[in-house]
Parts: sequence; structure tokens; C-alpha cells
Amino acid sequence: MRKSALVFTVAIIVLSCSWQLLAWRHAPRFLGKFAAGTHTHTHTQAPEYRYETRYFQQRLDHFSFSDLPTFPQRYLISTEHWVGPQRLGPIFLYCGNEGDIEWFAQNTGFVWEIAPRFGAMVLFPEHRYYGDSVPYGSTEEAYKNATTLSYLTAEQALADFSVLVSHLKQNFSAQGCPVVLFGGSYGGMLAAWMRLKYPHIAVGALASSAPILQFEDIVPPQTFYDIVSNNFKRESVTCFNYIKQSWNEIAYTGQTSNGLERLAKTFNLCQILKRTGDLYDWLESAYSFLAMVNYPYPSEFLMTLPGHPIREVCRRIDGVPDGTSILERIYEGVNVYYNYTGEAKCFELDDDPHGMSGWNWQACTEMVMPMSSNQESSMFPPYEFNYTSFQEECLMNFGVKPRPKWITTEFGGHDVHATLKKFGSNIIFSNGLLDPWSGGSVLQNISESVVALVTEEGAHHIDLRPSTEDDPDWLVELRETEIRLIESWISDYHQKNNAIFDM
Amino acid sequence: MRKSALVFTVAIIVLSCSWQLLAWRHAPRFLGKFAAGTHTHTHTQAPEYRYETRYFQQRLDHFSFSDLPTFPQRYLISTEHWVGPQRLGPIFLYCGNEGDIEWFAQNTGFVWEIAPRFGAMVLFPEHRYYGDSVPYGSTEEAYKNATTLSYLTAEQALADFSVLVSHLKQNFSAQGCPVVLFGGSYGGMLAAWMRLKYPHIAVGALASSAPILQFEDIVPPQTFYDIVSNNFKRESVTCFNYIKQSWNEIAYTGQTSNGLERLAKTFNLCQILKRTGDLYDWLESAYSFLAMVNYPYPSEFLMTLPGHPIREVCRRIDGVPDGTSILERIYEGVNVYYNYTGEAKCFELDDDPHGMSGWNWQACTEMVMPMSSNQESSMFPPYEFNYTSFQEECLMNFGVKPRPKWITTEFGGHDVHATLKKFGSNIIFSNGLLDPWSGGSVLQNISESVVALVTEEGAHHIDLRPSTEDDPDWLVELRETEIRLIESWISDYHQKNNAIFDM
Repeated sequence: MRKSALVFTVAIIVLSCSWQLLAWRHAPRFLGKFAAGTHTHTHTQAPEYRYETRYFQQRLDHFSFSDLPTFPQRYLISTEHWVGPQRLGPIFLYCGNEGDIEWFAQNTGFVWEIAPRFGAMVLFPEHRYYGDSVPYGSTEEAYKNATTLSYLTAEQALADFSVLVSHLKQNFSAQGCPVVLFGGSYGGMLAAWMRLKYPHIAVGALASSAPILQFEDIVPPQTFYDIVSNNFKRESVTCFNYIKQSWNEIAYTGQTSNGLERLAKTFNLCQILKRTGDLYDWLESAYSFLAMVNYPYPSEFLMTLPGHPIREVCRRIDGVPDGTSILERIYEGVNVYYNYTGEAKCFELDDDPHGMSGWNWQACTEMVMPMSSNQESSMFPPYEFNYTSFQEECLMNFGVKPRPKWITTEFGGHDVHATLKKFGSNIIFSNGLLDPWSGGSVLQNISESVVALVTEEGAHHIDLRPSTEDDPDWLVELRETEIRLIESWISDYHQKNNAIFDM
Repeated sequence: MRKSALVFTVAIIVLSCSWQLLAWRHAPRFLGKFAAGTHTHTHTQAPEYRYETRYFQQRLDHFSFSDLPTFPQRYLISTEHWVGPQRLGPIFLYCGNEGDIEWFAQNTGFVWEIAPRFGAMVLFPEHRYYGDSVPYGSTEEAYKNATTLSYLTAEQALADFSVLVSHLKQNFSAQGCPVVLFGGSYGGMLAAWMRLKYPHIAVGALASSAPILQFEDIVPPQTFYDIVSNNFKRESVTCFNYIKQSWNEIAYTGQTSNGLERLAKTFNLCQILKRTGDLYDWLESAYSFLAMVNYPYPSEFLMTLPGHPIREVCRRIDGVPDGTSILERIYEGVNVYYNYTGEAKCFELDDDPHGMSGWNWQACTEMVMPMSSNQESSMFPPYEFNYTSFQEECLMNFGVKPRPKWITTEFGGHDVHATLKKFGSNIIFSNGLLDPWSGGSVLQNISESVVALVTEEGAHHIDLRPSTEDDPDWLVELRETEIRLIESWISDYHQKNNAIFDM
């Protein structure tokens, strides 16, 4: 038993080397390939939430009357704590993001933990084209080409959620029950957008780590990598500098004879290194994900990691004996991310960096998030986002032309404070400033009920994670504030309904 | 010159017999075939608004990445009174509805008249699949079948408007200029929905005679025909009763030998009558349109008509000598609608009642507005809306299955007061209670800035029409209130922007 778990863990580690050139250069993925896999079941400490798994037939295109096949949308549902329609028990809907919904359910303890307090139904609908919710019969067919993929968009996903919850409300005679949206990362963007676009369906949204402003020129393109870099600098300036210097070392070594071989050996790769770029990707991926999961306690979200993992990475990079080469230092450091359990024998880099994946498709169509790396402030190799070459890559890889201005046309962003000051209500934008995605989110209150909850020491949607005994006070308080706000939305909803009813 | 105008007028009268069984039984059209034609140029009194006609290439499906052809969207634009981007001159955008945009431009004098006062640019984008804005190269190709028609939806039209205005703002360096939406009837629904769905694009909407609640069971299905009937009853109970009795007379006569021939003669039809149902349609159409255009002054909106046209219809129905048969009375009455100018020699009924038309397609897909006719309160033949047979008709006529719950899922409606009490802002729902569509609109204030302006004596979007010397005081005041509200939206926008700018 133990052995097979071990083998599986190694398999995960192999999978983990998934940072892709395309994705990295332009739009870091939120969660890597983890989200798409089913590896989470091996986490022995994973909480056991009880739910039923069901399927609902959805239209492939909600916005036309094309005669397309429907597809089964998977959703997880629990009515265990729901007080039912007569007492107007709320419905908590987590907006599934780019991956297997079971994994998000496992990693969104907050919703499960507060549901009993609210007497709420819990729903986790899966995002179309991910997990089990694929059209055309199989993931292979769904991801075949640009034509089959063309309905993988955020607007269609929001319509899926809206149609599903309307259907369920009717089935449960629960038309009067308020729906509260939850979401983290891309799921948080969906939650915020759904509250804006479907206010008649949901009374409010907790959008955690939702970078709805990471489009066009709304925030500076270097924001993301600057925040990652600052995560390292705040722990150790020397560590930051070692990493900053390492890229040239890698490039230089790669150009020497047997250089790629030596790099493969230094970094304990299972196979030969074809180009230094692949190693760049592997390292950059580790640093970015480390910043996202820079939690104050040990976690197993993306990988098994200690608390304050970047502190540990820098402790190792800085702590090796004098005279150790920069590359050996780096190797010591990234071991914290890729092999904290010590179970990996060697590391395998992704050999299909341009492969079709759902998020890469989304990044090449709607989710165009320009990312640069600044010469001065970033520890990453300098890079300036170039839309023309980005578009070429998308055309080459997917046969699709991105629509870089569509998201701001459809959902806004440029003037979010002015627009939402009087329009819209009941949205929490929660962000931890260690999270590199926080720079693209809403960090200031917009109105009385469109609020920003910002924590200095928080990382990627930490508030949505299961509570632990190690939770710092600020995290406990953050969640209490969120609960109070959600309570106020629901009581406000009841008051308004009574007022209308009394009219 | 006079002669050709005359011939054309007769042609219009022939076209006017356009009420279609399908449409009537389930969803009366807003404007009939008029909107689709180009007849308006013959109105000698038509105001001459100055604009340029331009075209913009639009995606056929905004919500997928399908590789479809683009289509040219026509739009009318006037920058004559615009004070320009530096002075943040507003942009007035009329949401084109189901017809030729030039006709709407001609009949929406309000926007043209107030533009100078606001220093505003005026935009009239055409609705896709109408007028010149058709995909696949021609109306014939666009209306070929359910596949080519499948992108004729309200959501796509709203996205067209949003993409177009975003593009124009960029071209004019007018990103900071506030957009105000206008729309009447279906165009008013689009204006309200666009303010709700695209608040980042438009600061407010004047939605005139916009029946956004005429879906599912939100308002009683008999509302529309009850209001039409009350228009007649308030003028004359005997007139109401003559009309109410006439249907049985027609049915009875139609069943006698030579009955159809006699009916054709009585009603001065150009051709033989194939079935009494066609005559029903023709009459029902006249009564419904008469209620819509029951304006207090002479107008030429749908037809050349006197002021208070229903008063005139009833005057004629009631006023013929004693002993005149009911059918002859009815004929005298509808002559007011179909032949007020006296130029028609005979009347031609629509010989393609189930033909493909844009609005019929929309009514068979999204715009499912259940309509019944009540035995007691209505002067029309009793009829109960039956969804099953409606669906069968749509499948038969268009090969498409309606989605009767989609509009309320996408745009809401059931709980509009509760939903918008705190969410959303800056929408005027203006309605005249003579208008049969008013029953499906918002008739009570929802919040401080989502307001209902209701006039007892108003008909279908009378406020948007060009001002006349005969405008009653209440109409002048209504428009002044609207202007004040629009001014407040714009000044509010400037204040917020300055506040953000000062931050």
C-alpha cells in the first residue's frame, strides 16, 4: 500500500515539471497541471468531504441556436447541512476552475466548514472542458482542434453555472433560496464576473485571489514577476541575487561542450536536457508556484511543502558551504519545491511544452494576460511581452487568433473603481500580498459592499483552504470577516424579499 | 413626383397587412414589417437628420472561437454637435432593434433633439440580421435556415454594440467619454440589458416601452391583449362590444357558402380570402398596433393616423347608421388604420404568414413571450397560450426548439425589484399606460436611480419620438425629467472620475 502511494507520488513529481514556455512567457498558469490530474486522492491527510457526484446536460453554445451536441457537466452536491427551501437555506456555489472539480472541492475547505453554520447546500460544478465535463465524448476529441475547443470560454462557463443552478433551484423548489458564489484564482474571477453578470442568480461573491485586472495595460506587465521576486528578496537579498545570477550561469554552461549534459547532472534530471530553455521553465515554474503557495504552515496544495517554503528555499540556497557553485545552490533550493519529501529519484522535464491544455487554450484566446520581467526589480531573465509574437505562437500551437481586448469589453476592468462605485454590490475581493496574482486584483474598497480584504502575509487564496491548527490570527480574522459579510448579504436579501412581499 | 409617392404609399399599405398567425398567437411583434422596410423615406414630413453611414466588421459569434465569417454592421454616426474627447463629450447610442436602422433613426427624434444640448455624439448601430447588417452576404443567405440564423440573438447584438463602441472610443481617443444608451420597445430591452450587462461601457440607459418582464409567468399572459382592449373600452363600451362580437360573425359568415367571398368583399380585400384566420390576423394586427400608436397627435409612425386614432376608430364603428351590420362597422373602423389617407384601392393580406422573418425567429428562440386572450376582459377571441403547440410551430417553421427560460436565466426578471434594489443603477423605464407593452415593463421605481416614469396617456415609446407642436404638457415634462436624469448620470460620472483621479 505504502509502496504504490510512493510510486504515485513520484509520478506526480514527474508531472509537476509542467511549466510551459508559452504559458510562462505570457500568462503563468494558476495551478499547473495539478488541477487537471486526479493525484490529490493520494494525500493521506486530505479531508473527507461528503458529496454526491451528478451530471447535467449542458448546451455547448448558450449564445447561439446552433445545433451542437450537449455535454455532461459534472457537479458535486451536498444537501447534508441544507435547511431546505422553506427556511430559504442558502446555496453555496463554488465556481469550478481550470481542472478536476474534485481537487478544488478537496482544497476549498472553507466552503465545507462554514456550510453547517449557514444551513447551506454546497455545489461544486465543474468547468466545461476540464475533468469529466468534456464535450464530444472524450477529452481527446474535445481537445482535438480549434473547432472542438472553440466553446471553452469563461462566458460559456458562467452560463453553465447559471443554467445549472436555475435548474436545481426549480428541482428543489428552492427559487427563493439565495445563492452565494465562491471561487479562487480563475474561479474567483468567474465568481466576481458571475455576480456582475448574473445578479439575479447570486446575491454575492467571495472572489479570492482573482486577478480580474491582469489584462491589457490595466496593471503594469511586470507586476506578477516582481511580486514573485519580492517574495524571495524579503527572505534574503543574497538568495534573490543568486537566483538572478543563475540564468546567465545556465546559459553560459549550456553553450559549452557537454554543457547540457552537465546541467542535467547538476539538476538531477532523468533525461538529457535538449535546450537550456527547458531548464529555465522548470526553475521559473518552481519560483512562481512557490510564491503562490507561500503559506505560513506546511501544506500539500501543489506539492508537499514546509511552512514559509520560500524561507526554506533561501535558507538552503544561502546555507550551503562557501565555494559551492551558484547552480548547485539553486539545485539545493528548488529541491524544496520539487522534492521536499525526498522521494524523487530524478526529475523529468515536460517533453511537450506546447501541448494542448485547457488553460493554454484559454490563455491563447480570451485570457491574454501580458507579462514582462523587469531588468532591475525581477530576479527572472528580462523579458518584454510582445503581442505579435504571442499571437504567432497561438496561431502556431492552436490555430487560433487571440482576442486580447475581449475580456475588458465583456467584463470591464479599466475603470473598475469608477464603474462599480455605484453599480453592483456584494463582492469580496480577498488577496494575500505574497501571492503574485494579487497585483492584478482589486486591492482597495470600491464601495460599501464591493470590498477588498487584503492580508500582508497571505498567499494564493489561502482563505478558501481548509482551516488548520497552525492558522495565524490574521487568517482566522479574515475568514470571520468574510463570514460576517456573507451573513449580511443573506440577511439583506431576506429583508428585501420581505419588503417586496409586504408591498 | 406626387404620383410615385402615391404608388409607394399603396405599396406600404399592402405590406402592412403583415400580422402573422405565429407571431400574433404567441408574441405580437413590436413593429411589424415596417421596421424591415425602407418605406420611411416617403414620409414627406420626416425630419432630416444628418449623419454618416458606416460599416464595422463584427464577429458572428462573440462567445466562441469558431472560425465563422464576419459580417458588416451598419451604423449611423453624427459628430456634428459632439464637443469632442477633451471635453468628455458624451456618446448617445441608440440600441438598434428589429429593423432597418434608418427608420429607427428617423423615428427617434428625442436623441437628435437633445444631442446639441449635451454636446453629444450620436450613434445608431443596426441590429444584426436586420437592414444592411446581415451575415453571409445577403438577407436571403442569412435567413436560409436555422444554422445561418442561429447567431441572431439579443446577447450577440449587445456584444456587437459593446465591441463597436469600444472600437469607436479608441479611434476617437474618447475612452473617457460617457456612453448613454437609448432604446425603444425591443431596443429599450436591449438598452436596459446592456446597462446591466455592460456597466463599464455605458453610464445609463433610457429604456422606453421595454417589456423586459414579458417572459414566462412574470406577468399574467393576458396582460397585452387586456391593455389593447381597454384602449377601446375607455373610448366606447359599445365599440369594444362590437369588436368582441365581430369574431363570431366572421367565423359564422366564413362557414356559409360563398362566405369567404363575402368577407373579402366586405373588407375590400384585393384577393380571395383563403381562411377566416387570415382576416382575424389582419384585424387583430390593426387593433394591437392602434393601441401601440395611440398617440394624442397625428402621426406617421406605422401608418398615417389621426391623433387619438382609437377614438377615431370607435367614432366610426359607433357612428355608422343604425342597422349597419357589425362587419361593416368593423370595416369602417379598421379603415382608419389601414387607409386613413384614403389612397388604398383594396387590401392585400399577407400571403406568407409563416415566412421567415427576423422577429419571428427571435420569438421562436429566445423571445418567448406567452400571450393569452381572456374570455371576459379581452375583446379578442379567447385564447390560451400553449407551450407545446408553440414549440411544435417553431420546430415546423424554423426547425428550432425555443428556449423559453433562457432570457430570465441570462437577464433575470422574476425578482427584478429585489435584485436591482441594491444592484445596478441609472436606468429609466419609461412607459405609457396606453401601450399594450407597458404591462410587461417596470412600472414602479426600484431604487433611487433605477426609476419608472409612467404616463397615463402615453403610448409606445412616445417620449423617443420627435417633438411636435401638439405635444401635451405631460409629454414635455416627461422628456424634461429624462433630460435631467441623464444630466445627473453624466455629472455623477464626471464627479466619480475626478474623485478617482484625485486619489
